[in-house]
Amino acid sequence: MPALRLALNQIDTTFGDLPGNADLVVRWTRHAADQGAQLVAFPDATLIGSPAEAQQPRPWLLDASRSALVQLAERLESEGLGGTPVVLGCVEGRGDGPASRPALLHQGHVLTRPATHGPVVVRLHGVDVALGVGGDLQQDGKWLHALSGAGLLLVTGAFPYATGGGDARLERVRDRARAAGCAVACVNLTGGQDERVFDGDSLVVDAKGEVLARAPQFEEGCLLADLDLPPATSGPDGPGDHHVVISEEAAPAPAEPVAAGRARRMDELEEVYAALVCGVRAQTAKNGFTSILVGLDGGIGSALVAAVAVDAIGAEDVHGVTLPTSETSGQALENAAETARRTGLVLRSVPLDPVLDACTDALDLTDLADLNLQARLCGTVLAALAETEGRLLLATSDRTGLTIGHPSVHGQAMGAFAPLRHVYRTTALRLAKWRNAAAAARGEVPPVPERTLTDADDQPGAEPLPPYEVLDALLTAYVDEGAGESELVGRGFPPETVARVTRLADAAASTRHRHPPGTRL
Amino acid sequence: MPALRLALNQIDTTFGDLPGNADLVVRWTRHAADQGAQLVAFPDATLIGSPAEAQQPRPWLLDASRSALVQLAERLESEGLGGTPVVLGCVEGRGDGPASRPALLHQGHVLTRPATHGPVVVRLHGVDVALGVGGDLQQDGKWLHALSGAGLLLVTGAFPYATGGGDARLERVRDRARAAGCAVACVNLTGGQDERVFDGDSLVVDAKGEVLARAPQFEEGCLLADLDLPPATSGPDGPGDHHVVISEEAAPAPAEPVAAGRARRMDELEEVYAALVCGVRAQTAKNGFTSILVGLDGGIGSALVAAVAVDAIGAEDVHGVTLPTSETSGQALENAAETARRTGLVLRSVPLDPVLDACTDALDLTDLADLNLQARLCGTVLAALAETEGRLLLATSDRTGLTIGHPSVHGQAMGAFAPLRHVYRTTALRLAKWRNAAAAARGEVPPVPERTLTDADDQPGAEPLPPYEVLDALLTAYVDEGAGESELVGRGFPPETVARVTRLADAAASTRHRHPPGTRL
Repeated sequence: MPALRLALNQIDTTFGDLPGNADLVVRWTRHAADQGAQLVAFPDATLIGSPAEAQQPRPWLLDASRSALVQLAERLESEGLGGTPVVLGCVEGRGDGPASRPALLHQGHVLTRPATHGPVVVRLHGVDVALGVGGDLQQDGKWLHALSGAGLLLVTGAFPYATGGGDARLERVRDRARAAGCAVACVNLTGGQDERVFDGDSLVVDAKGEVLARAPQFEEGCLLADLDLPPATSGPDGPGDHHVVISEEAAPAPAEPVAAGRARRMDELEEVYAALVCGVRAQTAKNGFTSILVGLDGGIGSALVAAVAVDAIGAEDVHGVTLPTSETSGQALENAAETARRTGLVLRSVPLDPVLDACTDALDLTDLADLNLQARLCGTVLAALAETEGRLLLATSDRTGLTIGHPSVHGQAMGAFAPLRHVYRTTALRLAKWRNAAAAARGEVPPVPERTLTDADDQPGAEPLPPYEVLDALLTAYVDEGAGESELVGRGFPPETVARVTRLADAAASTRHRHPPGTRL
Repeated sequence: MPALRLALNQIDTTFGDLPGNADLVVRWTRHAADQGAQLVAFPDATLIGSPAEAQQPRPWLLDASRSALVQLAERLESEGLGGTPVVLGCVEGRGDGPASRPALLHQGHVLTRPATHGPVVVRLHGVDVALGVGGDLQQDGKWLHALSGAGLLLVTGAFPYATGGGDARLERVRDRARAAGCAVACVNLTGGQDERVFDGDSLVVDAKGEVLARAPQFEEGCLLADLDLPPATSGPDGPGDHHVVISEEAAPAPAEPVAAGRARRMDELEEVYAALVCGVRAQTAKNGFTSILVGLDGGIGSALVAAVAVDAIGAEDVHGVTLPTSETSGQALENAAETARRTGLVLRSVPLDPVLDACTDALDLTDLADLNLQARLCGTVLAALAETEGRLLLATSDRTGLTIGHPSVHGQAMGAFAPLRHVYRTTALRLAKWRNAAAAARGEVPPVPERTLTDADDQPGAEPLPPYEVLDALLTAYVDEGAGESELVGRGFPPETVARVTRLADAAASTRHRHPPGTRL
């Protein structure tokens, strides 16, 4: 069977940075061509840098992207790379809003899919290669029929990360291969943009759905694979409505075959932790920051955020601040200091008492308002420091605290980004323990202090709440699954707990959208 | 022709308050029956209290609403009102999410529209009355055909307010009447829920599209009308698939005809101001507050918010606070005091210097961070006061400041609700002038100080910006209409202004969703 050397480049683009994203395409195309690739693919939305569903790009950006695509084809040609066909996903404006379509760049020209139904089929070295975008993995009927006779379906995707989503995507790709009776290659973005992260994990399966090659998760890079593909069976017009012939003659056998990579799969907690690191790294770099500020209160949330931040950009650029008052426990300050010692982040202390006293002297507050005031003052001081020093302020509140409107969130929720916005407290604890175990297994210092882990079940707060395992299960059922109070009681939650927690969640519901964004999981 | 006395009750429901909303139906049905109404209608989502598109009610609330509807029918019967047919819109869960449908309550029973296509037609006093919901004003084909022979289409609507939307709705109703060849009555919600307000404006048009009766905007009440309608022409099975016969005999001629009301129409600014008042009143009452706290900085935003708050709940429950520092101008404080004198709101002053000094002593801040710190401290103090005293804190920032991320928004944006979130600065000024003129015309004290109006064009801010007229036009084009930079320059905006303003808007874009909700206009 004819062979084809395919390069799937899972790159980390930046929304709106057309020149920078075009540079990435040129650089990685050269890298792939140097390694003998005969077909080079990039993910969806390569030039705009984020899929249409995530960003709703403005009309002028769509126009600029169209021009940039033409320039990119010309530039590849002028830099001697025009002979290697390049496929990348593009966001284009249509009547009913922006949509993705695959584009083929070859010898200085651009071929995009016509508006009519069905994939573009490219004949390359005698093999028919059909081009699709992520959404086409679910197309059927006429669209699927148009693949008949194709040797390979090449999908340029941008699949936002979701917990366990990689396995579901693999199954979808395998199903598609078996239904179409051809090999399927799927290239994905990696990196993050605002609340979304993309986990790479590009892959190739054969016509039976068996995995031939699979790229690492959350890493930029090129997955090379030599594919044995059936020769095209139809005449030069080929299958489908949109057929382009680049070359009929079979490719020369590769001098030295490449070993197709099969990256190790991350386990569940490793994957979630990697997503958090990816999100913080992207949020920092893509907003022009080189350092991070984080308030350390000795608790599990801020310790985990600090560990993630250090893993994302390095300890020397992570600045921790404690804001002690006369009532702050020595243990909390010791935990914060221990976090700094373990991770190497830069720690300082700003005593809050003078500010707090000035406020409470001027105001006659209730206990709850006093608690909230202190939390807000912490946030205000952190924001002022971050602004003065030009650092990204990370909020340390987690999903549990945000969902019930825990008083501390007024301070912990101050920031440009909240890595744990979508992480319940019990998951935060599991992630911290996993991260410590991973460090220990590598002979490194675990970043989260032991005392922070053992004290993580303590429930501060102004009124009694159930243990976090119960609280998180209850919030998941009530907020995420929409279960009503009687159903919750039926599931075994104590009635008075249901009443108290749903009341808190209802009261906090209206402010939930006002918290900083955080990586979706 | 047979006559029918119709009562359109435009009521102010509360989301989730099934018993309270049912009480409203009973009270207004009795009121209508006492006045001889033979058909009584209520808006969409009467029991749940907010249309499905606005709230996405949970499954358990939909279940509870279905039970409440059955109980309501039984209660009307047991209270002697079962003989008067009552039509109200209900939100019901369907396969593809919650949807509105009209329900008919009569003699203790509930009739809802079957899932199949087409309106329910009720024969009442020999007239065929078709029942529809707001979305049905746009149905055509089979649905419209099913109306043939009906004397009246009765629409139970919930149309969120949009500037000028009342006129568009009138035209839609008139078009529908002419297309269906029958009279159309349309009853709407009034009042507010979160960011939405509903403007009432219930109306009846004849088969030629001429207005027979129209209710006031933004007022709860009952629109009564005696309608002359053609007798049903088909047999007892009637037109359409879903036909119910209540009575074939013509209604007795009314002893004393009612004069159909035609409420005065508000002009554009009056309508927008009324929407703001409606939104603040609803936000206060429906969240269990009886008083409002607002920070007064002497500017147009806080003066307008104070005027709206006083109009919404009365001056004695509106508490203004100034937060002077050593650098606050005497004029700003005088403006705030003048606002209090003119409106009668309760004013107090909390000097900010001790708090501010405590912060700046502890931190070494840049000028911009210092400005932001001061703004955030103002917000923090206001929030603490509002919490301690149990008042609703209104944010005073306007759409212009929020859109460019004006430093002052860090303080002005603190609050549970931002009445001016969707009001550009120039519109705020026009609204304030309109409100003053309306007061003068009534011989009342205009609420907004003259000096606040004349100084409203001053542009504070850390860097030079164009006059507000230009700034707002530019932001409207860039943010609301999606025009690109080159298009903006093409429209005549100076290039350096375009560059500066779009940069500010882009930088503020990621935090815009984090501001408090405000009435949509």
